[in-house]
Amino acid sequence: MPHQPYRIGLLGHGVVGSAFEALLDERKADIESATGRSPEIGGILTRSRGNFQEILERSDVIVEVMGGIEPAGTYALETLRAGKPLITANKQLLAARGSELLGLARKCEMPLRFEASVAGAVPIIRTLDGALGAAEISRVYGIVNGTTNFILSAMEDGKEYGEALVEAREAGYYGADGPTEDVSGKDAAAKMAILARLAFGVDATLDDVYADGIEELHPDDLQYARDFDMTLKLLGSATRENGRLALSVHPTFLPRTHPLAAITGPINAVTVEGEAFESITLSAPGAGGPPTASAVLGDLLAVMRGESYSLSKQATLPIVHDTTHAFYLHVEVADDPGTLSRIAGVLGDEGISIQSVLQRGLGETARLIFILHPTTRPHLQAALTTVGHLDVLRSSPRVIHVLG
Amino acid sequence: MPHQPYRIGLLGHGVVGSAFEALLDERKADIESATGRSPEIGGILTRSRGNFQEILERSDVIVEVMGGIEPAGTYALETLRAGKPLITANKQLLAARGSELLGLARKCEMPLRFEASVAGAVPIIRTLDGALGAAEISRVYGIVNGTTNFILSAMEDGKEYGEALVEAREAGYYGADGPTEDVSGKDAAAKMAILARLAFGVDATLDDVYADGIEELHPDDLQYARDFDMTLKLLGSATRENGRLALSVHPTFLPRTHPLAAITGPINAVTVEGEAFESITLSAPGAGGPPTASAVLGDLLAVMRGESYSLSKQATLPIVHDTTHAFYLHVEVADDPGTLSRIAGVLGDEGISIQSVLQRGLGETARLIFILHPTTRPHLQAALTTVGHLDVLRSSPRVIHVLG
Repeated sequence: MPHQPYRIGLLGHGVVGSAFEALLDERKADIESATGRSPEIGGILTRSRGNFQEILERSDVIVEVMGGIEPAGTYALETLRAGKPLITANKQLLAARGSELLGLARKCEMPLRFEASVAGAVPIIRTLDGALGAAEISRVYGIVNGTTNFILSAMEDGKEYGEALVEAREAGYYGADGPTEDVSGKDAAAKMAILARLAFGVDATLDDVYADGIEELHPDDLQYARDFDMTLKLLGSATRENGRLALSVHPTFLPRTHPLAAITGPINAVTVEGEAFESITLSAPGAGGPPTASAVLGDLLAVMRGESYSLSKQATLPIVHDTTHAFYLHVEVADDPGTLSRIAGVLGDEGISIQSVLQRGLGETARLIFILHPTTRPHLQAALTTVGHLDVLRSSPRVIHVLG
Repeated sequence: MPHQPYRIGLLGHGVVGSAFEALLDERKADIESATGRSPEIGGILTRSRGNFQEILERSDVIVEVMGGIEPAGTYALETLRAGKPLITANKQLLAARGSELLGLARKCEMPLRFEASVAGAVPIIRTLDGALGAAEISRVYGIVNGTTNFILSAMEDGKEYGEALVEAREAGYYGADGPTEDVSGKDAAAKMAILARLAFGVDATLDDVYADGIEELHPDDLQYARDFDMTLKLLGSATRENGRLALSVHPTFLPRTHPLAAITGPINAVTVEGEAFESITLSAPGAGGPPTASAVLGDLLAVMRGESYSLSKQATLPIVHDTTHAFYLHVEVADDPGTLSRIAGVLGDEGISIQSVLQRGLGETARLIFILHPTTRPHLQAALTTVGHLDVLRSSPRVIHVLG
């Protein structure tokens, strides 16, 4: 007896949509024997073909891989209102309107799943919602943008930013829309808003996440950091501290021995910390057709089995942009006796202590690189304003976060 | 209105059991608000207190963290037959009688969950069953025994095996039962049987897994391998190849750049490979009270939400002990002209090709270290038998797997 069909309405047929169609075809027999139903694409919506209402009516589930906030958002709401489950890979939509969508899904008692929206094949949404659904989490952080990780890896190998950007384009790590969302940190910020919701139960949106990108980095700083045995990553982090949640994306130095230091190229990795389980790290390809389609396929199996997320955490932690950090500070100064001590004195006056310092003579000037013990950004800013008034300064101070 | 209680019968009150009791107490309020029921320990069974039948009768779920095959197995079967869900951290039981337990759970339509049985806080069971439940997996491999990983890390730092063993005991990485299960590879083998079931749908038991331990290793080999930029791990692996499943545990050299090379001390890490998603790696503490209890707590939330595993894969792949591997080969020989060429000739005659070789003079003898391209164990064994007949040999050849 043939299996009863389970009809999938596919919104979007780009890199992920077509990879999903191919993967579904390949894995169909196994899904049939596991669920007793035969998944098939019942309709495809693209800019040039298909009608959403018709597709919705004849589908058992909608898979949205078109991206963007509209019309995807309208389609998502209509899907849930029509009493059909929704699977989406759309980080922008979830970061902008997650509460509305999840609220409607709860009201309609319809599964809404979005594993593919964050970090491609990394099963981080399920892990936060399931394995860690009853756990107390203190911090979630990681590399959630593969394009910038590829660029930073290339820059550490000595490439200029522009050169690395061209390489990333040639390797297909960003498309027609350009790399702005990636290099500005906005893409990572959207993903951190979603992760913060799952890990801490807060209602975070993209606007709640302070994002520093990688555009302003000096390749020199990546080289100098080698002397401190550090490597640079664009890290998103959500940290619970003193009853608040610090949510941000920053280029961040980390020790070469840190597990995330080994994550190079277009791979994503997320670390979750909590007192009971200490530290769990998950890594996998962060983008690309087949890996993202694989995450969508996992969601399809779950929806066919009637599984919703638990979303067991609800909290109203105030969201702040920043917390205390260790910092890397680079300045060029007149190579006079006493310069180091004057700058160290200013830092000390602001209560900022120095972990290590490296001074290199460059003829008439000297380069000073400090690694500072944890302090707040405003504290450091105040100190740098005072340093700026010293007559010994020969360059603007450059500051980069260091993982604490 | 107070929440209706959800009564947990706890079998075992050692390191994991008491950590679970403490963690449950801490996380109780959140679980209540997520599930609408109030989890509480309704009874505890230890060697000296409690009666299983009484505990079973008044419990809504049984959490078994006592270990060992009996009486845990009888209690597990009785739990499911009584129509109550079962959560277990018992790798021995699952590796020996997994089919029987899972079959009964299916027949009784009762959830049976066992995340804590493999790799502590690493959410590998859920990932294989859920995110990858519809995926085609080609290989699962990793570090699933923390005690041996600790010992190998210490040996790479120059410690003798015996010294490292004492350090592991002092750090509490093995208990009164001694380290035999760990260092013989049996503990890792039990875990690989469970992972093979989830990843490939095979009915594997402990006896199906060929296990080489770490007892016979020479610390010298760990040092020499540095010259090839490799590090040694005890790796369990399940590899689908030519319609068969190769299932084994071996000390294995891997390149220092490999993600698993960075896993040191009592941490566990598992990598899953498949064409679509490429490679997913999960790492976390592999043992210890709170991390293991955290995995049990995740299972409790799932059971309270009525979630069973999907176990969507069913296959009858023949299980074999071994597949092709690259190998490290160490021999000491008479330092005569032509010796290297004679040994290379024997290998070549068996069709084994050499990837790299290092020769060091030691006075009258020389040390030869080969890295061999992938071949089978029987092939290599045949070659070594012939090498053994050469009059130039001054030590028994030593062979260690190299990750291919």
